[in-house]
Amino acid sequence: MAEPQHEVHRPADTGVVARIVADVYAECLADRSGEPADYIPELAAVQPDSFGLCLATADGRVYGAGDVHAAFTIQSISKPFTYALALADRGPAAVAERIDVEPSGEPFNEISLDPVTERPRNPMINAGAITAASLITGRDAADKFDRVRRCYSRFAGRELGVNEAVYASEARTGYRNRAIGYLLRSFGTIDSDPDEAVDRYFRQCSIDVTCHDLAVMAATLANNGVNPLTGERALSTALTEHVLSVMTTCGMYNAAGDWVSTVGMPAKSGVGGGILAVLPGQIGIAVYSPRLDRQGNSVRGVAACRALSRRLELHFLHVTRSAHTAIRAEYTVAEVPSRVRRSTEEIAVLDEHWHRTRIYELHGDLLFAGAESAVRAIEERAGQLDALVVDLRRVGDVSAIAVTMLADLHRELVAIGCQVALVDPDAKLGHLAAGDSRGQVFHDRDTAIEWCEDVVLARHRPASEPACTSMSVEEHPALAALAPDARARLAAHFEMRTVARDEVVVRRGDSRSGLYLILAGRVRLTFDDADGRTHRLVTLTAGMSFGEIPMLMGEPFVNEVRAETGVRLAVLGPADFDVLAERAPELKSALLERLAAVAYAQVDAAVRAVAVRGGDY
Amino acid sequence: MAEPQHEVHRPADTGVVARIVADVYAECLADRSGEPADYIPELAAVQPDSFGLCLATADGRVYGAGDVHAAFTIQSISKPFTYALALADRGPAAVAERIDVEPSGEPFNEISLDPVTERPRNPMINAGAITAASLITGRDAADKFDRVRRCYSRFAGRELGVNEAVYASEARTGYRNRAIGYLLRSFGTIDSDPDEAVDRYFRQCSIDVTCHDLAVMAATLANNGVNPLTGERALSTALTEHVLSVMTTCGMYNAAGDWVSTVGMPAKSGVGGGILAVLPGQIGIAVYSPRLDRQGNSVRGVAACRALSRRLELHFLHVTRSAHTAIRAEYTVAEVPSRVRRSTEEIAVLDEHWHRTRIYELHGDLLFAGAESAVRAIEERAGQLDALVVDLRRVGDVSAIAVTMLADLHRELVAIGCQVALVDPDAKLGHLAAGDSRGQVFHDRDTAIEWCEDVVLARHRPASEPACTSMSVEEHPALAALAPDARARLAAHFEMRTVARDEVVVRRGDSRSGLYLILAGRVRLTFDDADGRTHRLVTLTAGMSFGEIPMLMGEPFVNEVRAETGVRLAVLGPADFDVLAERAPELKSALLERLAAVAYAQVDAAVRAVAVRGGDY
Repeated sequence: MAEPQHEVHRPADTGVVARIVADVYAECLADRSGEPADYIPELAAVQPDSFGLCLATADGRVYGAGDVHAAFTIQSISKPFTYALALADRGPAAVAERIDVEPSGEPFNEISLDPVTERPRNPMINAGAITAASLITGRDAADKFDRVRRCYSRFAGRELGVNEAVYASEARTGYRNRAIGYLLRSFGTIDSDPDEAVDRYFRQCSIDVTCHDLAVMAATLANNGVNPLTGERALSTALTEHVLSVMTTCGMYNAAGDWVSTVGMPAKSGVGGGILAVLPGQIGIAVYSPRLDRQGNSVRGVAACRALSRRLELHFLHVTRSAHTAIRAEYTVAEVPSRVRRSTEEIAVLDEHWHRTRIYELHGDLLFAGAESAVRAIEERAGQLDALVVDLRRVGDVSAIAVTMLADLHRELVAIGCQVALVDPDAKLGHLAAGDSRGQVFHDRDTAIEWCEDVVLARHRPASEPACTSMSVEEHPALAALAPDARARLAAHFEMRTVARDEVVVRRGDSRSGLYLILAGRVRLTFDDADGRTHRLVTLTAGMSFGEIPMLMGEPFVNEVRAETGVRLAVLGPADFDVLAERAPELKSALLERLAAVAYAQVDAAVRAVAVRGGDY
Repeated sequence: MAEPQHEVHRPADTGVVARIVADVYAECLADRSGEPADYIPELAAVQPDSFGLCLATADGRVYGAGDVHAAFTIQSISKPFTYALALADRGPAAVAERIDVEPSGEPFNEISLDPVTERPRNPMINAGAITAASLITGRDAADKFDRVRRCYSRFAGRELGVNEAVYASEARTGYRNRAIGYLLRSFGTIDSDPDEAVDRYFRQCSIDVTCHDLAVMAATLANNGVNPLTGERALSTALTEHVLSVMTTCGMYNAAGDWVSTVGMPAKSGVGGGILAVLPGQIGIAVYSPRLDRQGNSVRGVAACRALSRRLELHFLHVTRSAHTAIRAEYTVAEVPSRVRRSTEEIAVLDEHWHRTRIYELHGDLLFAGAESAVRAIEERAGQLDALVVDLRRVGDVSAIAVTMLADLHRELVAIGCQVALVDPDAKLGHLAAGDSRGQVFHDRDTAIEWCEDVVLARHRPASEPACTSMSVEEHPALAALAPDARARLAAHFEMRTVARDEVVVRRGDSRSGLYLILAGRVRLTFDDADGRTHRLVTLTAGMSFGEIPMLMGEPFVNEVRAETGVRLAVLGPADFDVLAERAPELKSALLERLAAVAYAQVDAAVRAVAVRGGDY
């Protein structure tokens, strides 16, 4: 069962938050005012001073204090859940024809039909609740009720059952509710057997729950209808919103206004002594304490909800500004270059035009406000950009409106000549990946940044300096330090090799196998991290070299080298190299100097990138 | 004035969001049903088909369509704002003694006192609004009204004025409201001159606003009471919450339940044709269209609010999961090492014990739910940690409860032997920085990570290998490659130098000035980024060296070198070095090899860190 399995994580009674819950519990424990409901002996028979308090987060952590596992009947707290099932069974429109959603200034057991619409004012008064019960679908009465019971069980995350004694007593004495049932039948609000509907209502009110159950049911409502312990969906997001709306205006009978002001959470109470409150998206709260106030709400329950709302600032209109910002980080190819090692000419171009690129990392769930802030920020800068990357890897749910807005933005930017790429491995904007922008959706940021750099290079590379994509050994910069004749002599020692795309040139752990000069094409050095994921360390292109370190230090290769494209290599074998190093130490020195210089330039760049990024975000 | 200055940013009628607003505007434009209010000729005289729609974000971006600058009288939309001022003037408790906050199923102009409390049911019906007007403080009637007008002006971000013609007409014909005033006086609900209160109410209803004004007023409520255009606070956060609560339950008269279900935003409408709606923390919406439905609400206004709520998913119970997560990133010193270059021995220790460190970057505003998720995640891991860093640089507002929770967590961790450091340059947890943890609050992450590594090194460094903090030239690893005699000979050429703490050893741009070996102490290499901020590139300690590259390549120093502590250096001057390089090329080679090896090891480490972090978060 979800709950114990959950408890083993760590007992709910230690830790910072558990202590807060315990404090509030202790604070409210003293109050022994009020009396348990006594209209039937079974309710009067409870432990009047029993007290349980539970707080469950929308992701399923349950904190509790007191009698959190004592059973009691759910009573009126059942109303929103049967209403929810009726909405799911019949659809909101059909239900709206039978039950209004307006607060009624009247007691819960008032007949209270709207004089104009002749409909029960709302589903939280008995008339509305009995009507909701009449709308549940099923093969027969037994099946219909079992669907109700199973629905509650999905919210609670465990199989709930009926307290037969309480049910029998309710059924025996519930004259007023029977009267309501017949009246509803006479108005045609109920068009089936009213006795069956009223009986189902009695049964649903007699379902046994614990404080822990109610907290999980509340957390399920807080979690958009998905039970956070079982992962099972108990209600659609849209209907969850609707049920919470009705609880907001009609949940606490005629104290609704005061409740919204002082507690600020959609809630429902029952004469069994339970109260359930929901902070949408965040928290579910449940209290059990049988002593009731004049309005039929649990005395300690109301006090505990007020205290928690005040101390934890749980009011549902208490908002965070951060909910508004979807841009997690924002930078250019200067702060975060791709891991393609660029030539001196390319570096010069990027140094001049880096500011015409922008990478935006979005995060969080993209609702309208978040998307609006992101779209606005991007629109304000797009005019000065050649290429823009939107990184969606850390985005959660994307609302329909956000997808529309981003697709619209995409067209807008392309129209003004700013090229756009997405990092969207999970296709969160699936349809954006299709069609014209297909080629600009990447699975990782590094490749997207490489694309970004390529756009800038394509636009701003001086016509006079076309990219040098192929060369001879003599032309290779590695030999630049040598006099022409020395260069020619050395070149003769190199062995030419061509490697097919994706072929491995060198394996991790291979011993020194020569000095490799790249004459054409691209090779990629990769390594695997602790989790076995392969990362690109760097991509090398024509005019660059590898293998020097194993060569000079006699160490094995630490990274795999693989051809990204067809590659043409010139290799100076170990034997030749050693002979050379001996005969022409000045050549070895030249190589080493160049090597050290390149290496230090890279250290510098890499560390600067980390330093600046560490500062920026 | 704020609004035009704002418009120059970029016209509100282009861009993705502006188009959405324009769409909704066009969608609602067709409906010409309903009639303008006509109980006074001045209201009947408006352009019946005038229509304006504005959406303003909580950070002050205003999108508009149609007649957004047409003036009309605010009418009942004034009620929440005068109520707000009364709450500020008298305090919530005193106001609560005069006005309830319960929805009344009755029309707005009903006398409607609660039979039990004899108080107006809520401040959104006339009886409650007139009572609120009677509670405004001031020297005299004129001053009291001007305080009301200035209060509205703070919300709107510009000076508002009265439409005298409408006022005169209201004052001439408002018999029913005068009756209400006298009745309230007879009950003692108003204990001052009722005529004055009613007159103030007439004046406030006659204040001219535009659709743009109302949107900014709504955005100010959405922004916790701070006008996002002027930055001026119009109402405290707590009172803003209270006013929005009352608007939620009582704002739309007897359609409150339906409004909450289908629109889901606290709102207020007026017979002038305006509607104001608020999505707390995110959006303010305003509509102006004089044709009213039977309930006295603007026909297009209601339609536009429904359409925007549906299309933009603005329902205030529609929540994002991400609001729940305060942990922005989580990693160890393995992924993000400090920029202190560690010795081989230290690297060995860190390679073994990196998992006993953890850096948590928090972000967003820390309300309870966010703090709970962070505290829980930290508590679950703290048992296996030696040192933990909480980076608060990206945290916004920190609620009182979050401060308490983090302080409590801090004590808890220290008690189980996990050392804690904060990165909190702005002292967001001010009092946490005090007392015992003072020494563990850092201004930047890099220093905090260095501290983290030091804790691990202090705990796990083998007793057999104490940190080598001082050495002679002969002992310096740079000379390790040499035979003992060669080493001794070379050592003789070095000049000893001691540098005081914070003294500059080498300036950026200095030409080759020698090969520097660190014998004791620490030096820091720094560089300035594009914004002129100085970053630590690396800190070097005893046994390390610098100046090789300028030496070998003849390039100037690219970074400043400054003593972090008192430092003892051994320097081999350029002349000596060149002679050496000539006489003993094998020594130069040895130096170069070591140099290249060290450099490539660093490139590898730096790039891996970037690669892994790029993938992880």
